[in-house]
Amino acid sequence: MRQVWRNCHAATMARGGYSVIQHAAIVTRGIRIEWIGPDSARPNTPDAQVHDLGGAWVTPGLIDCHTHLVFGGNRSQEFEQRLQGVDYADIAAKGGGIASTVRATRAASEDALYVSARRRALHLLRDGVTTLEVKSGYGLDLPNERKMLRVARRLGQTLPLTVSATCLAAHALPPEFAGRADDYIDEVARRMLPVLAAEGLVDAVDAFCEHLAFSPEQVERVFKVAVQLGLPVKLHAEQLSSLHGASLAARYGAWSADHLEYLTERDVLAMALAGTVAVLLPGAFYALRETQLPPVGLLRHHGVPIAIASDLNPGTSPALSLRLMLSMACTLFRMTPEEALAGATVHAARALGLQATHGVLAADMVADFVAWDVEHPAELAYWIGGDLPKRVIRHGALVDMEGLA
Amino acid sequence: MRQVWRNCHAATMARGGYSVIQHAAIVTRGIRIEWIGPDSARPNTPDAQVHDLGGAWVTPGLIDCHTHLVFGGNRSQEFEQRLQGVDYADIAAKGGGIASTVRATRAASEDALYVSARRRALHLLRDGVTTLEVKSGYGLDLPNERKMLRVARRLGQTLPLTVSATCLAAHALPPEFAGRADDYIDEVARRMLPVLAAEGLVDAVDAFCEHLAFSPEQVERVFKVAVQLGLPVKLHAEQLSSLHGASLAARYGAWSADHLEYLTERDVLAMALAGTVAVLLPGAFYALRETQLPPVGLLRHHGVPIAIASDLNPGTSPALSLRLMLSMACTLFRMTPEEALAGATVHAARALGLQATHGVLAADMVADFVAWDVEHPAELAYWIGGDLPKRVIRHGALVDMEGLA
Ligand SMILES: [Zn+2]
Ligand SMILES: [Zn+2]
Repeated sequence: MRQVWRNCHAATMARGGYSVIQHAAIVTRGIRIEWIGPDSARPNTPDAQVHDLGGAWVTPGLIDCHTHLVFGGNRSQEFEQRLQGVDYADIAAKGGGIASTVRATRAASEDALYVSARRRALHLLRDGVTTLEVKSGYGLDLPNERKMLRVARRLGQTLPLTVSATCLAAHALPPEFAGRADDYIDEVARRMLPVLAAEGLVDAVDAFCEHLAFSPEQVERVFKVAVQLGLPVKLHAEQLSSLHGASLAARYGAWSADHLEYLTERDVLAMALAGTVAVLLPGAFYALRETQLPPVGLLRHHGVPIAIASDLNPGTSPALSLRLMLSMACTLFRMTPEEALAGATVHAARALGLQATHGVLAADMVADFVAWDVEHPAELAYWIGGDLPKRVIRHGALVDMEGLA
Repeated sequence: MRQVWRNCHAATMARGGYSVIQHAAIVTRGIRIEWIGPDSARPNTPDAQVHDLGGAWVTPGLIDCHTHLVFGGNRSQEFEQRLQGVDYADIAAKGGGIASTVRATRAASEDALYVSARRRALHLLRDGVTTLEVKSGYGLDLPNERKMLRVARRLGQTLPLTVSATCLAAHALPPEFAGRADDYIDEVARRMLPVLAAEGLVDAVDAFCEHLAFSPEQVERVFKVAVQLGLPVKLHAEQLSSLHGASLAARYGAWSADHLEYLTERDVLAMALAGTVAVLLPGAFYALRETQLPPVGLLRHHGVPIAIASDLNPGTSPALSLRLMLSMACTLFRMTPEEALAGATVHAARALGLQATHGVLAADMVADFVAWDVEHPAELAYWIGGDLPKRVIRHGALVDMEGLA
């Protein structure tokens, strides 16, 4: 059944810019866009159902390409304690920080994790997100990493969202491996990854390359297994220091390297050559009151695609809105609203290996788009917070938000 | 008709802290709270309608005590141009900046202004706001300041919101008075304020005390007229430099002095003695990438109540969420979640002269409250963006958000 969506303007995001079609129409058929162009050139579709979008601006559905949205508990009390002046070392000594999220995630049933993750996924969907990456990494053993990845799959099956599941078993050292990081990496590489991949739970493999997590050598052992399993890789890199993890990721043809505050020009060049996307995470930058800015100018200069994501996680970025991240990308990182929107559409699709089907409004792409009741797409990054009025179309069908609540 | 609201916990915000009642119940009668306390001590009310709040946390309705939400147009294109590298002087020379908002506001009909302001007020209401201040200040002549204040009144009459209308005619120099600031202050003091006050459109008088706006002497001429008219005053002070406007405001017993990045300890002491509330505006701090922090420690030390507001305006704070301002108050200003919530309830009520009726959950106060589906009130400041699930009760009645959209 064909549908026609008309009386709108389109920011198609082709070639990484707004690439505007004024007075546009979109013809969808099933889950695909069959045609998009000026309404005046619209093909004749006598059988189609016609939707009047009332002058809205249509963009591709937003893509949040870096989230940790499956987790147990939350860390609001820790947030309050730290602002009351309690020392982080004291909080950590009492089992706070990521250890508390690991404990709560391990203790939660798969159903309980699903219920809380679904609520957060709905926040993003109501905000205009139609594709979402979800990482494991708070289980840190086979049954609990599996549990998290199963929740990610279930979100994709039960909500009008495309979910990409990333195994981040090499996120942190679990307590039972304290002092034995190499042994844990063995466990990840030899046992967890092969098993979880065989169960069809893994779309990509990620790791945290940092002094307080894993070394480039340890990360490389994980990447080697990913290659053997035919899985693409991503990496948390250069967030707090420069270990050249981004160059390592590029050498493995990574979909993306993420965070990147301490990225060097050498790393940028490696990423440019490999086509690795730079995923910037302004929510974590904001929440951590980071002052070291990611090298946006160098990334631009060398033509590295820049994506923007929420990093939604309970510790360093409890961010429930990707659109707010566009504001932060502009205000904190001095990106333009057009670059920020490209970062949450076309470049974010590439960061998930979905560039052939998602992130751009064009014929044959999946019909995921948002009709925003704004006068210009720059408003998406301009307004700070709030829930901009919109209709979300996913797989060619209008999403009924009320029905999902 | 009595209503009982039970199965909840209450952060009453009495005495400026959470002042928690676990397992609370609230009895309302008409628009007032008749009783609040532990459910186990609840008085017998056989005739009452009972509402089960499902374990929610109840706080006073949020109060946004500093907004400029009535305006024509928006400045998203200017936001984009500046991020593209266009010089602010060039934008101003082409009629951008506040001049463009004044032009758009003057050109808009009262109905058109009402429609766009209502949309923004609904953003705030959906975010948990039940009381709102609205300033004029983009009209800058009698008919257009009147038009803005009439829109503010109409918002209060047509939405389930209490609206406090502030005349900010001394916001900027209108183009027709270029080079004649004293003449414009004469016009404000001798003509505009007395007329608008006589029409019942003014609850308080505000001005912008800054090098690029009006001097303390000019502000004082406005304040003197306010006193004659029996109207309380407020002041935009110490945002970009230290002119000791806050001390001047204190001398006039101001409800509040607002912004305050450059506040000195001398000003803090004057405010403490006068009982003037310090209204901090983290949205403008964020959007302007300000680095000079307001002196939160000194305000705390001298016992000045601190309120937090959105400063919702098209230029320096297009913020559509007061709850997000709580996050920014914590992250940017290092306030605690408890202080931030007090800043959007009990202290914000005082900044609007409403402390006898609003901002605290207690018997005889107006029954404006929000039932948040969270596990702890610290979550209000912890989550970054998103629309936390909630029910808003205003004047003792559940607000039907769908019916308002
Ligand atoms: Zn991450
Ligand atoms: Zn203001």
